[in-house]
Amino acid sequence: LTPHEVTVAALTGATVVVVDILRATTSMIWALDAGARRVWPVATVPAACALAKQLGPHCLLAGERGGLPLDGFDLGNSPSEFTPEQVTNRDIVMTTTNGTTALLHAQQARQVLIGAFANLSAVAEALRGSNEFHVLCAGTNGAATDEDSLFAGALMDRCLSADPDLSLSSQRTRQAWEQWRSIDQADLVGALRVSAGGRNLCQINQPADIQDAAIIDRCDCVPRYHHELGVALDHG
Amino acid sequence: LTPHEVTVAALTGATVVVVDILRATTSMIWALDAGARRVWPVATVPAACALAKQLGPHCLLAGERGGLPLDGFDLGNSPSEFTPEQVTNRDIVMTTTNGTTALLHAQQARQVLIGAFANLSAVAEALRGSNEFHVLCAGTNGAATDEDSLFAGALMDRCLSADPDLSLSSQRTRQAWEQWRSIDQADLVGALRVSAGGRNLCQINQPADIQDAAIIDRCDCVPRYHHELGVALDHG
Repeated sequence: LTPHEVTVAALTGATVVVVDILRATTSMIWALDAGARRVWPVATVPAACALAKQLGPHCLLAGERGGLPLDGFDLGNSPSEFTPEQVTNRDIVMTTTNGTTALLHAQQARQVLIGAFANLSAVAEALRGSNEFHVLCAGTNGAATDEDSLFAGALMDRCLSADPDLSLSSQRTRQAWEQWRSIDQADLVGALRVSAGGRNLCQINQPADIQDAAIIDRCDCVPRYHHELGVALDHG
Repeated sequence: LTPHEVTVAALTGATVVVVDILRATTSMIWALDAGARRVWPVATVPAACALAKQLGPHCLLAGERGGLPLDGFDLGNSPSEFTPEQVTNRDIVMTTTNGTTALLHAQQARQVLIGAFANLSAVAEALRGSNEFHVLCAGTNGAATDEDSLFAGALMDRCLSADPDLSLSSQRTRQAWEQWRSIDQADLVGALRVSAGGRNLCQINQPADIQDAAIIDRCDCVPRYHHELGVALDHG
Protein backbone atom coordinates (compact mmCIF):
# COMPACT_ATOMS: atom_id res chain seq x y z
CA LEU A 1 0.00 0.00 0.00
CA THR A 2 3.11 2.22 0.10
CA PRO A 3 6.65 1.82 -1.26
CA HIS A 4 7.91 1.36 2.31
CA GLU A 5 5.97 -1.88 2.69
CA VAL A 6 7.88 -3.73 0.00
CA THR A 7 11.63 -3.99 -0.59
CA VAL A 8 13.28 -3.16 -3.89
CA ALA A 9 14.60 -6.72 -3.82
CA ALA A 10 11.08 -8.17 -3.64
CA LEU A 11 10.17 -6.28 -6.81
CA THR A 12 13.32 -7.27 -8.71
CA GLY A 13 12.41 -9.15 -11.85
CA ALA A 14 8.69 -8.87 -11.12
CA THR A 15 5.75 -7.35 -12.95
CA VAL A 16 4.68 -4.22 -11.10
CA VAL A 17 1.74 -1.89 -11.64
CA VAL A 18 2.55 1.54 -10.18
CA VAL A 19 -0.43 3.59 -9.04
CA ASP A 20 -0.75 7.22 -8.00
CA ILE A 21 -4.36 8.01 -8.81
CA LEU A 22 -4.19 11.61 -7.54
CA ARG A 23 -2.46 12.44 -9.75
CA ALA A 24 0.87 11.29 -11.17
CA THR A 25 -0.06 8.08 -12.95
CA THR A 26 -3.41 9.46 -14.10
CA SER A 27 -1.59 12.45 -15.59
CA MET A 28 1.07 10.29 -17.25
CA ILE A 29 -1.60 8.18 -18.92
CA TRP A 30 -3.49 11.26 -20.11
CA ALA A 31 -0.22 12.77 -21.36
CA LEU A 32 0.91 9.78 -23.38
CA ASP A 33 -2.61 9.22 -24.65
CA ALA A 34 -2.59 12.84 -25.82
CA GLY A 35 0.54 12.23 -27.86
CA ALA A 36 3.46 13.00 -25.53
CA ARG A 37 6.59 11.17 -26.62
CA ARG A 38 7.91 10.32 -23.20
CA VAL A 39 7.50 11.26 -19.54
CA TRP A 40 10.66 11.42 -17.47
CA PRO A 41 9.89 11.02 -13.77
CA VAL A 42 12.57 12.63 -11.61
CA ALA A 43 12.74 12.77 -7.85
CA THR A 44 13.91 16.32 -7.18
CA VAL A 45 13.48 19.76 -8.65
CA PRO A 46 17.25 20.17 -9.17
CA ALA A 47 17.36 16.87 -11.04
CA ALA A 48 14.44 18.10 -13.16
CA CYS A 49 16.51 21.23 -13.86
CA ALA A 50 19.46 19.23 -15.05
CA LEU A 51 17.42 16.95 -17.27
CA ALA A 52 15.36 19.78 -18.77
CA LYS A 53 18.56 21.66 -19.58
CA GLN A 54 19.90 18.57 -21.32
CA LEU A 55 16.70 17.95 -23.30
CA GLY A 56 16.44 21.60 -24.31
CA PRO A 57 13.63 24.09 -24.90
CA HIS A 58 11.39 21.61 -26.69
CA CYS A 59 10.76 19.58 -23.53
CA LEU A 60 8.09 20.51 -21.01
CA LEU A 61 8.60 20.88 -17.28
CA ALA A 62 5.73 19.53 -15.20
CA GLY A 63 5.09 18.69 -11.59
CA GLU A 64 4.15 19.88 -8.16
CA ARG A 65 5.30 20.44 -4.63
CA GLY A 66 2.65 20.43 -1.94
CA GLY A 67 0.21 19.73 -4.78
CA LEU A 68 0.79 23.12 -6.36
CA PRO A 69 2.38 23.93 -9.73
CA LEU A 70 5.98 25.11 -9.61
CA ASP A 71 6.87 28.68 -10.48
CA GLY A 72 8.28 28.78 -14.00
CA PHE A 73 7.22 25.25 -14.94
CA ASP A 74 5.16 24.70 -18.09
CA LEU A 75 2.60 22.44 -16.46
CA GLY A 76 1.44 21.37 -13.02
CA ASN A 77 0.18 17.89 -12.25
CA SER A 78 -3.48 18.06 -13.27
CA PRO A 79 -4.50 15.45 -15.86
CA SER A 80 -6.48 18.03 -17.81
CA GLU A 81 -3.36 20.09 -18.45
CA PHE A 82 -1.88 17.36 -20.63
CA THR A 83 -3.79 18.18 -23.81
CA PRO A 84 -2.70 17.27 -27.34
CA GLU A 85 -2.09 20.98 -27.98
CA GLN A 86 0.37 21.06 -25.10
CA VAL A 87 2.12 17.74 -25.27
CA THR A 88 2.06 16.17 -28.73
CA ASN A 89 5.54 14.87 -29.56
CA ARG A 90 6.98 16.51 -26.48
CA ASP A 91 9.19 15.00 -23.82
CA ILE A 92 7.87 15.85 -20.36
CA VAL A 93 10.15 16.10 -17.34
CA MET A 94 7.87 15.44 -14.39
CA THR A 95 8.67 15.77 -10.72
CA THR A 96 6.00 14.83 -8.23
CA THR A 97 6.19 14.00 -4.56
CA ASN A 98 4.84 10.48 -4.27
CA GLY A 99 4.43 8.99 -7.74
CA THR A 100 8.07 9.43 -8.66
CA THR A 101 9.21 7.74 -5.47
CA ALA A 102 7.04 4.72 -6.26
CA LEU A 103 8.39 4.46 -9.82
CA LEU A 104 12.00 4.66 -8.67
CA HIS A 105 11.25 2.03 -6.07
CA ALA A 106 10.21 -0.34 -8.87
CA GLN A 107 13.13 0.32 -11.18
CA GLN A 108 14.56 -3.19 -10.78
CA ALA A 109 11.33 -4.82 -11.86
CA ARG A 110 11.15 -6.78 -15.09
CA GLN A 111 8.29 -4.63 -16.28
CA VAL A 112 6.57 -1.64 -14.75
CA LEU A 113 3.08 -0.75 -15.93
CA ILE A 114 1.52 2.65 -15.24
CA GLY A 115 -1.97 2.20 -13.88
CA ALA A 116 -4.93 4.41 -12.97
CA PHE A 117 -8.69 4.34 -13.38
CA ALA A 118 -8.01 6.05 -16.70
CA ASN A 119 -6.66 2.77 -18.13
CA LEU A 120 -8.08 0.14 -15.77
CA SER A 121 -9.32 -2.25 -18.45
CA ALA A 122 -6.19 -1.89 -20.56
CA VAL A 123 -3.97 -2.72 -17.57
CA ALA A 124 -6.17 -5.68 -16.65
CA GLU A 125 -5.88 -6.91 -20.24
CA ALA A 126 -2.11 -6.45 -20.22
CA LEU A 127 -1.88 -8.54 -17.04
CA ARG A 128 -4.00 -11.36 -18.40
CA GLY A 129 -2.11 -14.63 -18.08
CA SER A 130 0.42 -13.24 -15.58
CA ASN A 131 1.08 -15.73 -12.83
CA GLU A 132 2.12 -13.03 -10.43
CA PHE A 133 2.11 -9.28 -10.25
CA HIS A 134 2.47 -6.54 -7.68
CA VAL A 135 0.42 -3.40 -7.38
CA LEU A 136 2.59 -0.67 -5.91
CA CYS A 137 0.56 2.19 -4.48
CA ALA A 138 2.34 5.53 -4.19
CA GLY A 139 0.45 6.66 -1.09
CA THR A 140 0.85 10.15 0.31
CA ASN A 141 4.05 11.04 2.13
CA GLY A 142 4.63 7.46 3.19
CA ALA A 143 1.06 6.72 4.28
CA ALA A 144 -1.38 4.46 2.48
CA THR A 145 -4.24 6.27 0.75
CA ASP A 146 -7.69 5.04 -0.17
CA GLU A 147 -7.65 6.38 -3.71
CA ASP A 148 -4.70 4.12 -4.60
CA SER A 149 -5.85 1.05 -2.69
CA LEU A 150 -9.31 1.39 -4.19
CA PHE A 151 -7.73 1.14 -7.63
CA ALA A 152 -5.66 -1.84 -6.50
CA GLY A 153 -8.89 -3.51 -5.39
CA ALA A 154 -10.57 -2.74 -8.70
CA LEU A 155 -7.66 -4.29 -10.55
CA MET A 156 -7.73 -7.42 -8.36
CA ASP A 157 -11.39 -7.70 -9.11
CA ARG A 158 -10.71 -7.65 -12.85
CA CYS A 159 -7.67 -9.91 -12.88
CA LEU A 160 -8.18 -12.61 -10.35
CA SER A 161 -8.33 -16.24 -11.19
CA ALA A 162 -10.75 -18.53 -9.41
CA ASP A 163 -8.30 -19.38 -6.67
CA PRO A 164 -5.97 -16.48 -6.17
CA ASP A 165 -3.10 -16.34 -3.72
CA LEU A 166 -3.39 -12.84 -2.34
CA SER A 167 -1.17 -10.97 0.09
CA LEU A 168 -2.91 -9.53 3.12
CA SER A 169 -2.72 -6.04 1.64
CA SER A 170 -4.22 -7.27 -1.59
CA GLN A 171 -7.06 -8.97 0.25
CA ARG A 172 -7.73 -5.73 2.06
CA THR A 173 -7.87 -3.64 -1.12
CA ARG A 174 -10.18 -6.15 -2.75
CA GLN A 175 -12.54 -6.06 0.23
CA ALA A 176 -12.47 -2.28 0.21
CA TRP A 177 -13.38 -2.21 -3.46
CA GLU A 178 -16.24 -4.69 -3.02
CA GLN A 179 -17.52 -2.90 0.03
CA TRP A 180 -17.46 0.43 -1.75
CA ARG A 181 -19.14 -1.05 -4.81
CA SER A 182 -21.94 -2.56 -2.75
CA ILE A 183 -22.71 0.83 -1.24
CA ASP A 184 -22.62 3.17 -4.19
CA GLN A 185 -21.23 1.98 -7.44
CA ALA A 186 -21.73 5.18 -9.31
CA ASP A 187 -19.96 7.50 -6.95
CA LEU A 188 -16.26 6.90 -7.55
CA VAL A 189 -15.83 10.67 -7.46
CA GLY A 190 -17.30 10.72 -3.96
CA ALA A 191 -14.99 7.93 -2.81
CA LEU A 192 -11.95 9.74 -4.20
CA ARG A 193 -13.07 13.02 -2.68
CA VAL A 194 -12.96 11.64 0.87
CA SER A 195 -9.61 9.90 0.35
CA ALA A 196 -6.43 11.47 1.72
CA GLY A 197 -5.32 12.62 -1.72
CA GLY A 198 -8.81 13.87 -2.54
CA ARG A 199 -9.05 15.94 0.63
CA ASN A 200 -5.65 17.45 -0.16
CA LEU A 201 -6.84 18.45 -3.63
CA CYS A 202 -10.00 20.02 -2.21
CA GLN A 203 -7.91 21.98 0.25
CA ILE A 204 -5.76 23.43 -2.53
CA ASN A 205 -8.88 24.07 -4.58
CA GLN A 206 -8.29 21.60 -7.39
CA PRO A 207 -11.44 19.43 -7.11
CA ALA A 208 -11.76 19.08 -10.90
CA ASP A 209 -8.75 16.76 -10.85
CA ILE A 210 -10.73 14.31 -8.71
CA GLN A 211 -13.48 14.09 -11.30
CA ASP A 212 -10.91 13.57 -14.05
CA ALA A 213 -9.11 10.85 -12.09
CA ALA A 214 -12.43 9.03 -11.57
CA ILE A 215 -13.09 8.60 -15.30
CA ILE A 216 -12.73 4.87 -15.89
CA ASP A 217 -11.18 3.66 -19.15
CA ARG A 218 -10.80 7.05 -20.72
CA CYS A 219 -7.60 5.75 -22.34
CA ASP A 220 -6.76 2.47 -23.98
CA CYS A 221 -3.00 2.61 -23.47
CA VAL A 222 -0.67 1.01 -20.92
CA PRO A 223 2.45 3.16 -20.49
CA ARG A 224 5.53 1.36 -19.24
CA TYR A 225 8.40 2.68 -17.19
CA HIS A 226 12.05 1.91 -17.81
CA HIS A 227 14.60 3.53 -15.51
CA GLU A 228 16.77 4.69 -18.40
CA LEU A 229 14.05 5.43 -20.92
CA GLY A 230 11.35 7.02 -18.80
CA VAL A 231 7.64 6.33 -19.23
CA ALA A 232 6.43 5.65 -22.75
CA LEU A 233 3.89 3.59 -24.64
CA ASP A 234 6.59 1.66 -26.42
CA HIS A 235 10.25 1.35 -25.48
CA GLY A 236 11.06 -0.71 -28.57
CA LEU B 1 22.81 45.50 6.51
CA THR B 2 20.08 43.28 5.10
CA PRO B 3 17.56 43.73 2.28
CA HIS B 4 14.78 44.05 4.87
CA GLU B 5 16.25 47.27 6.22
CA VAL B 6 15.76 49.23 3.03
CA THR B 7 12.72 49.52 0.79
CA VAL B 8 12.78 48.81 -2.92
CA ALA B 9 11.52 52.38 -3.34
CA ALA B 10 14.53 53.81 -1.50
CA LEU B 11 16.84 52.06 -3.97
CA THR B 12 14.88 53.11 -7.07
CA GLY B 13 17.10 55.13 -9.37
CA ALA B 14 20.07 54.81 -7.01
CA THR B 15 23.55 53.36 -7.34
CA VAL B 16 23.71 50.15 -5.32
CA VAL B 17 26.60 47.85 -4.54
CA VAL B 18 25.28 44.37 -3.74
CA VAL B 19 27.44 42.27 -1.45
CA ASP B 20 27.31 38.60 -0.49
CA ILE B 21 30.89 37.84 0.42
CA LEU B 22 30.24 34.18 1.33
CA ARG B 23 29.72 33.45 -1.45
CA ALA B 24 27.40 34.65 -4.21
CA THR B 25 28.98 37.94 -5.23
CA THR B 26 32.51 36.60 -4.76
CA SER B 27 31.65 33.67 -7.03
CA MET B 28 29.99 35.90 -9.64
CA ILE B 29 33.09 38.08 -9.82
CA TRP B 30 35.37 35.06 -10.13
CA ALA B 31 33.08 33.58 -12.79
CA LEU B 32 32.94 36.67 -14.99
CA ASP B 33 36.65 37.28 -14.48
CA ALA B 34 37.23 33.70 -15.66
CA GLY B 35 35.36 34.39 -18.88
CA ALA B 36 31.75 33.54 -18.20
CA ARG B 37 29.41 35.40 -20.52
CA ARG B 38 26.65 36.13 -18.09
CA VAL B 39 25.36 35.04 -14.68
CA TRP B 40 21.60 34.78 -14.29
CA PRO B 41 20.58 35.04 -10.64
CA VAL B 42 17.25 33.35 -10.01
CA ALA B 43 15.36 33.05 -6.77
CA THR B 44 14.09 29.48 -6.83
CA VAL B 45 15.21 26.09 -8.07
CA PRO B 46 12.11 25.72 -10.28
CA ALA B 47 12.83 29.10 -11.88
CA ALA B 48 16.41 27.94 -12.45
CA CYS B 49 14.95 24.85 -14.15
CA ALA B 50 12.84 26.90 -16.47
CA LEU B 51 15.63 29.28 -17.43
CA ALA B 52 18.19 26.51 -17.93
CA LYS B 53 15.76 24.67 -20.19
CA GLN B 54 15.29 27.83 -22.22
CA LEU B 55 19.04 28.52 -22.49
CA GLY B 56 19.79 24.91 -23.40
CA PRO B 57 22.60 22.43 -22.74
CA HIS B 58 25.37 24.98 -23.19
CA CYS B 59 24.45 26.87 -20.03
CA LEU B 60 25.66 25.85 -16.60
CA LEU B 61 23.51 25.32 -13.54
CA ALA B 62 25.08 26.58 -10.33
CA GLY B 63 23.96 27.27 -6.79
CA GLU B 64 23.26 25.94 -3.37
CA ARG B 65 20.62 25.23 -0.78
CA GLY B 66 21.74 25.11 2.82
CA GLY B 67 25.19 25.93 1.46
CA LEU B 68 25.47 22.61 -0.35
CA PRO B 69 25.61 21.95 -4.09
CA LEU B 70 22.39 20.77 -5.69
CA ASP B 71 22.05 17.25 -7.00
CA GLY B 72 22.39 17.30 -10.78
CA PHE B 73 23.72 20.85 -11.00
CA ASP B 74 27.00 21.52 -12.81
CA LEU B 75 28.48 23.71 -10.11
CA GLY B 76 27.91 24.63 -6.49
CA ASN B 77 28.61 28.09 -5.09
CA SER B 78 32.35 27.96 -4.32
CA PRO B 79 34.40 30.68 -6.04
CA SER B 80 37.10 28.18 -6.96
CA GLU B 81 34.65 26.15 -9.04
CA PHE B 82 34.29 28.96 -11.56
CA THR B 83 37.46 28.28 -13.53
CA PRO B 84 38.09 29.33 -17.13
CA GLU B 85 37.91 25.65 -18.13
CA GLN B 86 34.41 25.45 -16.69
CA VAL B 87 32.88 28.79 -17.53
CA THR B 88 34.49 30.50 -20.52
CA ASN B 89 31.75 31.84 -22.81
CA ARG B 90 29.09 30.06 -20.79
CA ASP B 91 25.89 31.46 -19.39
CA ILE B 92 25.50 30.48 -15.76
CA VAL B 93 22.09 30.10 -14.12
CA MET B 94 22.73 30.65 -10.42
CA THR B 95 20.34 30.17 -7.56
CA THR B 96 21.55 31.00 -4.07
CA THR B 97 19.70 31.69 -0.89
CA ASN B 98 20.69 35.19 0.12
CA GLY B 99 22.63 36.82 -2.72
CA THR B 100 19.83 36.43 -5.21
CA THR B 101 17.32 37.98 -2.85
CA ALA B 102 19.55 41.03 -2.46
CA LEU B 103 19.98 41.44 -6.21
CA LEU B 104 16.27 41.20 -6.86
CA HIS B 105 15.68 43.73 -4.11
CA ALA B 106 17.83 46.20 -6.03
CA GLN B 107 16.32 45.63 -9.44
CA GLN B 108 14.80 49.12 -9.62
CA ALA B 109 18.14 50.80 -9.04
CA ARG B 110 19.77 52.91 -11.74
CA GLN B 111 22.88 50.80 -11.57
CA VAL B 112 23.76 47.73 -9.52
CA LEU B 113 27.41 46.89 -8.99
CA ILE B 114 28.53 43.46 -7.79
CA GLY B 115 31.01 43.86 -4.94
CA ALA B 116 33.26 41.61 -2.88
CA PHE B 117 36.79 41.70 -1.51
CA ALA B 118 37.73 40.11 -4.84
CA ASN B 119 37.13 43.44 -6.60
CA LEU B 120 37.25 45.99 -3.75
CA SER B 121 39.55 48.50 -5.49
CA ALA B 122 37.73 48.20 -8.79
CA VAL B 123 34.39 48.93 -7.14
CA ALA B 124 35.87 51.85 -5.21
CA GLU B 125 37.23 53.21 -8.47
CA ALA B 126 33.88 52.76 -10.21
CA LEU B 127 32.18 54.72 -7.42
CA ARG B 128 34.63 57.60 -7.57
CA GLY B 129 32.73 60.83 -8.02
CA SER B 130 29.38 59.37 -7.01
CA ASN B 131 27.48 61.71 -4.79
CA GLU B 132 25.51 58.93 -3.22
CA PHE B 133 25.50 55.19 -3.19
CA HIS B 134 24.05 52.33 -1.18
CA VAL B 135 25.80 49.18 -0.11
CA LEU B 136 23.24 46.40 0.11
CA CYS B 137 24.44 43.48 2.21
CA ALA B 138 22.79 40.14 1.52
CA GLY B 139 23.06 38.88 5.10
CA THR B 140 22.11 35.34 6.03
CA ASN B 141 18.45 34.37 6.13
CA GLY B 142 17.40 37.91 6.93
CA ALA B 143 20.04 38.61 9.58
CA ALA B 144 23.01 40.94 9.19
CA THR B 145 26.36 39.19 8.91
CA ASP B 146 29.83 40.46 9.72
CA GLU B 147 31.44 39.27 6.51
CA ASP B 148 29.21 41.55 4.46
CA SER B 149 29.27 44.55 6.78
CA LEU B 150 33.06 44.29 7.03
CA PHE B 151 33.23 44.67 3.28
CA ALA B 152 30.81 47.60 3.42
CA GLY B 153 33.13 49.23 5.95
CA ALA B 154 36.17 48.61 3.77
CA LEU B 155 34.39 50.22 0.84
CA MET B 156 33.39 53.25 2.93
CA ASP B 157 36.99 53.59 3.96
CA ARG B 158 38.11 53.70 0.33
CA CYS B 159 35.39 55.93 -1.01
CA LEU B 160 34.59 58.53 1.54
CA SER B 161 35.06 62.18 0.99
CA ALA B 162 36.32 64.44 3.76
CA ASP B 163 32.86 65.16 5.08
CA PRO B 164 30.62 62.20 4.37
CA ASP B 165 26.97 61.96 5.22
CA LEU B 166 26.66 58.41 6.49
CA SER B 167 23.63 56.46 7.54
CA LEU B 168 23.77 54.91 10.97
CA SER B 169 24.35 51.48 9.45
CA SER B 170 27.17 52.83 7.31
CA GLN B 171 28.79 54.45 10.31
CA ARG B 172 28.63 51.16 12.10
CA THR B 173 30.23 49.20 9.29
CA ARG B 174 33.00 51.75 8.98
CA GLN B 175 33.71 51.55 12.70
CA ALA B 176 33.72 47.76 12.52
CA TRP B 177 36.24 47.85 9.69
CA GLU B 178 38.52 50.32 11.50
CA GLN B 179 38.30 48.39 14.71
CA TRP B 180 39.11 45.14 12.98
CA ARG B 181 42.01 46.75 11.09
CA SER B 182 43.51 48.16 14.27
CA ILE B 183 43.56 44.70 15.80
CA ASP B 184 44.87 42.50 13.03
CA GLN B 185 45.12 43.82 9.54
CA ALA B 186 46.47 40.67 8.03
CA ASP B 187 43.89 38.26 9.23
CA LEU B 188 40.86 38.89 7.05
CA VAL B 189 40.51 35.12 6.79
CA GLY B 190 40.18 34.92 10.57
CA ALA B 191 37.56 37.66 10.62
CA LEU B 192 35.53 35.93 7.93
CA ARG B 193 35.89 32.56 9.66
CA VAL B 194 34.13 33.80 12.80
CA SER B 195 31.37 35.57 10.88
CA ALA B 196 27.94 33.95 10.57
CA GLY B 197 28.57 32.95 6.98
CA GLY B 198 32.06 31.71 7.81
CA ARG B 199 30.85 29.52 10.64
CA ASN B 200 28.21 28.04 8.33
CA LEU B 201 30.87 27.18 5.76
CA CYS B 202 33.06 25.55 8.41
CA GLN B 203 30.09 23.49 9.55
CA ILE B 204 29.50 22.16 6.06
CA ASN B 205 33.22 21.59 5.64
CA GLN B 206 33.95 24.19 2.98
CA PRO B 207 36.60 26.34 4.76
CA ALA B 208 38.62 26.85 1.56
CA ASP B 209 35.88 29.17 0.30
CA ILE B 210 36.60 31.52 3.20
CA GLN B 211 40.23 31.86 2.17
CA ASP B 212 39.21 32.49 -1.42
CA ALA B 213 36.67 35.13 -0.42
CA ALA B 214 39.35 36.93 1.63
CA ILE B 215 41.64 37.50 -1.35
CA ILE B 216 41.52 41.27 -1.90
CA ASP B 217 41.62 42.62 -5.46
CA ARG B 218 42.08 39.30 -7.16
CA CYS B 219 39.95 40.65 -10.00
CA ASP B 220 39.91 43.99 -11.74
CA CYS B 221 36.33 43.85 -13.00
CA VAL B 222 33.06 45.32 -11.77
CA PRO B 223 30.13 43.17 -12.90
CA ARG B 224 26.79 44.92 -13.14
CA TYR B 225 23.33 43.51 -12.69
CA HIS B 226 20.36 44.32 -14.87
CA HIS B 227 17.08 42.61 -14.08
CA GLU B 228 16.49 41.58 -17.68
CA LEU B 229 20.08 40.93 -18.69
CA GLY B 230 21.54 39.25 -15.63
CA VAL B 231 25.00 39.96 -14.28
CA ALA B 232 27.70 40.76 -16.82
CA LEU B 233 30.77 42.91 -17.27
CA ASP B 234 29.15 44.89 -20.02
CA HIS B 235 25.47 45.18 -20.85
CA GLY B 236 26.13 47.36 -23.88
